[in-house]
Amino acid sequence: MAEQAPETAHVEGSLQRLEAFSDSVMAVIITIMAFELKPPAAATGAALADRMPGLLVYALSFAFIGIYWNNHHHLLRSARRLSAAVMWSNLLLLFWLSLIPVLTSWLATSYKSSLPAAVYGAVGLLAAVSYYLLVRALIAANGRDTPLARSVARDLKGKVSVVLYAAGAAAAFISPWISYVLFVTVSVMWVVPDPRLARSRHPRDG
Amino acid sequence: MAEQAPETAHVEGSLQRLEAFSDSVMAVIITIMAFELKPPAAATGAALADRMPGLLVYALSFAFIGIYWNNHHHLLRSARRLSAAVMWSNLLLLFWLSLIPVLTSWLATSYKSSLPAAVYGAVGLLAAVSYYLLVRALIAANGRDTPLARSVARDLKGKVSVVLYAAGAAAAFISPWISYVLFVTVSVMWVVPDPRLARSRHPRDG
Amino acid sequence: MAEQAPETAHVEGSLQRLEAFSDSVMAVIITIMAFELKPPAAATGAALADRMPGLLVYALSFAFIGIYWNNHHHLLRSARRLSAAVMWSNLLLLFWLSLIPVLTSWLATSYKSSLPAAVYGAVGLLAAVSYYLLVRALIAANGRDTPLARSVARDLKGKVSVVLYAAGAAAAFISPWISYVLFVTVSVMWVVPDPRLARSRHPRDG
Amino acid sequence: MAEQAPETAHVEGSLQRLEAFSDSVMAVIITIMAFELKPPAAATGAALADRMPGLLVYALSFAFIGIYWNNHHHLLRSARRLSAAVMWSNLLLLFWLSLIPVLTSWLATSYKSSLPAAVYGAVGLLAAVSYYLLVRALIAANGRDTPLARSVARDLKGKVSVVLYAAGAAAAFISPWISYVLFVTVSVMWVVPDPRLARSRHPRDG
Repeated sequence: MAEQAPETAHVEGSLQRLEAFSDSVMAVIITIMAFELKPPAAATGAALADRMPGLLVYALSFAFIGIYWNNHHHLLRSARRLSAAVMWSNLLLLFWLSLIPVLTSWLATSYKSSLPAAVYGAVGLLAAVSYYLLVRALIAANGRDTPLARSVARDLKGKVSVVLYAAGAAAAFISPWISYVLFVTVSVMWVVPDPRLARSRHPRDG
Repeated sequence: MAEQAPETAHVEGSLQRLEAFSDSVMAVIITIMAFELKPPAAATGAALADRMPGLLVYALSFAFIGIYWNNHHHLLRSARRLSAAVMWSNLLLLFWLSLIPVLTSWLATSYKSSLPAAVYGAVGLLAAVSYYLLVRALIAANGRDTPLARSVARDLKGKVSVVLYAAGAAAAFISPWISYVLFVTVSVMWVVPDPRLARSRHPRDG
Repeated sequence: MAEQAPETAHVEGSLQRLEAFSDSVMAVIITIMAFELKPPAAATGAALADRMPGLLVYALSFAFIGIYWNNHHHLLRSARRLSAAVMWSNLLLLFWLSLIPVLTSWLATSYKSSLPAAVYGAVGLLAAVSYYLLVRALIAANGRDTPLARSVARDLKGKVSVVLYAAGAAAAFISPWISYVLFVTVSVMWVVPDPRLARSRHPRDG
Repeated sequence: MAEQAPETAHVEGSLQRLEAFSDSVMAVIITIMAFELKPPAAATGAALADRMPGLLVYALSFAFIGIYWNNHHHLLRSARRLSAAVMWSNLLLLFWLSLIPVLTSWLATSYKSSLPAAVYGAVGLLAAVSYYLLVRALIAANGRDTPLARSVARDLKGKVSVVLYAAGAAAAFISPWISYVLFVTVSVMWVVPDPRLARSRHPRDG
């Protein structure tokens, strides 16, 4: 701590609060979605089976938010400075994520239609674009030759996600099932461990 | 840390908890509002378009809470001491902010009427007054010749916001659309970066 | 930090997490109550006036939770050690507090009847008893001759609150309005600053 | 702090954020359940009695989440390193816990039927299995010869809980009341203090 300038310590406190606020918002989003699940209408297997599509859509959205939380966490860990642009692009990202519960609720009842799947993909795309703006704002605030900028330069998964969400939004008008396959692909891609990347982040983990 | 008196360290822990509690409340408010958004009644473009006014009102309220979070965050960063008056004025601010979700919900269905727009403006005004009380309480607890007091002395945006919310509440009885223009103006004013002010806060950012 | 034994540092981390969890629960309770407020049924003054009793009950419950948050915060600040009894009595307190939103909702529609006011008082009493158990558990874990034990010994307001909630619960069967007067009295008693007590806690504040 | 390598400090920050996120999710789950409680339909004793089964189911679920919070807290306190597997198994645990509110709501209205009790037990079992995966992932990341691994080796209560939830799920098809007895047994087993275990964790507490 000795060689840290006071401003840096100050800004790190701000970073922690930005993280804490974003975590709270994402924690509430992830939990509120479960609250949109309706209990089965009766105590029968048929009534329970009736809720299964809703549960699967919920699981997809849970993974969606969980992945953002995980990535957001890794991203901010490498940051050391904030700026107004970081604050607002982060709020913009949270705005799009906050629409996921109501879209999940729509998708749960209308998963056979094109429009809800397309809107879901479009919001996924807008969230990805906001995340990209957040990354740019963080690099602008922290400098190009930093661990943050280097780790982001390798962000292939992020770019593939943007393409898959855009493709999923468009493909919904052919069949929403193509969209779901693409959305699930994004989730699986992020959850499956990638030892090379993980190692480059935490040399002593695993 | 060496020259810090124990009481100061103690009070800083309290400040952190005050921040954390306020952040949690604002995070829940911002997310719960999204939960008040109803999914479109059908999987059609018309049903989706039907939800657009609600979405715009939600975006306005999201910006409203987001701006308070951001300002609250900057305000408390400059503080070093607490008092009972700080605790209660902070709770009063959170009380008014907690009414925003239900007002958002009312506005979403009745945005063409004067009364909801006027009440929205009135609550915005009461929140601004509570924020002002919080600022006064913090200055009383921290002293007049401190970074906190100096940074607040320049708070032109805060004063303009109070005037615009009051004007918005009154103008709703002429037309609610004037109110919306004024409310959006407040949001834009805060979101648009102000390099001079930002620099005065974090000399090494951006 | 030099003279701290590792266990103490460890337990302080636990205390922080206990505080953070309790803060989150209280933050969600306070916000979720606002969500139980229904928007006025129409954009008229009469429809708005119709919601006023609900708003007043909400304000009472907001103060109720806010006061617990504030007291809980001061209580844990003086603590240095945890025990299983502290963990469970804290959860018990949160359990009773978590019933306040649904009681608020009941009271908002049935505030002229005795039973909801009596149950509200009873839950207030059970919360106060749980808080007392938490205080006892903290003293048992931290020792009798500590700042915690000394600060609690002066806790006159806590004892008066228990009596007023018990009286409020019983008086509801005469008239619920007596209960409301007593409940509001508790809130006012806590919110009005008490310079002597406040000074004894933070010698350099105010 | 002097002998800590920078990576360790870094990973400890991550651990704190993992804890904070999990705490937020569990805090919202525990509170949102209370929100599923319906206020009594009238201000009469009969209407209140009508809500009692729902309240008891809520108390059971509150204890269920509270116990997970407490155990999760003790588990992560002993950890020093993270891995991707830790992140995802933790999210999987939160996923199952997030289904408890909707199941509580189902159980509150259909507690006399077998299916809701069986599904409740099954989700309890899946949560326990996810917790076991989290424990394994933490041991893999932290090493076998660490306080974490040693404390987990004694985890008899964890194993008994898995068996009781599995038995509870199966027994529901004979009578749901057997399930409830088993579920309550799990809660009581965890809440009743176990001085030997508690001491092995915090040598200087109590």
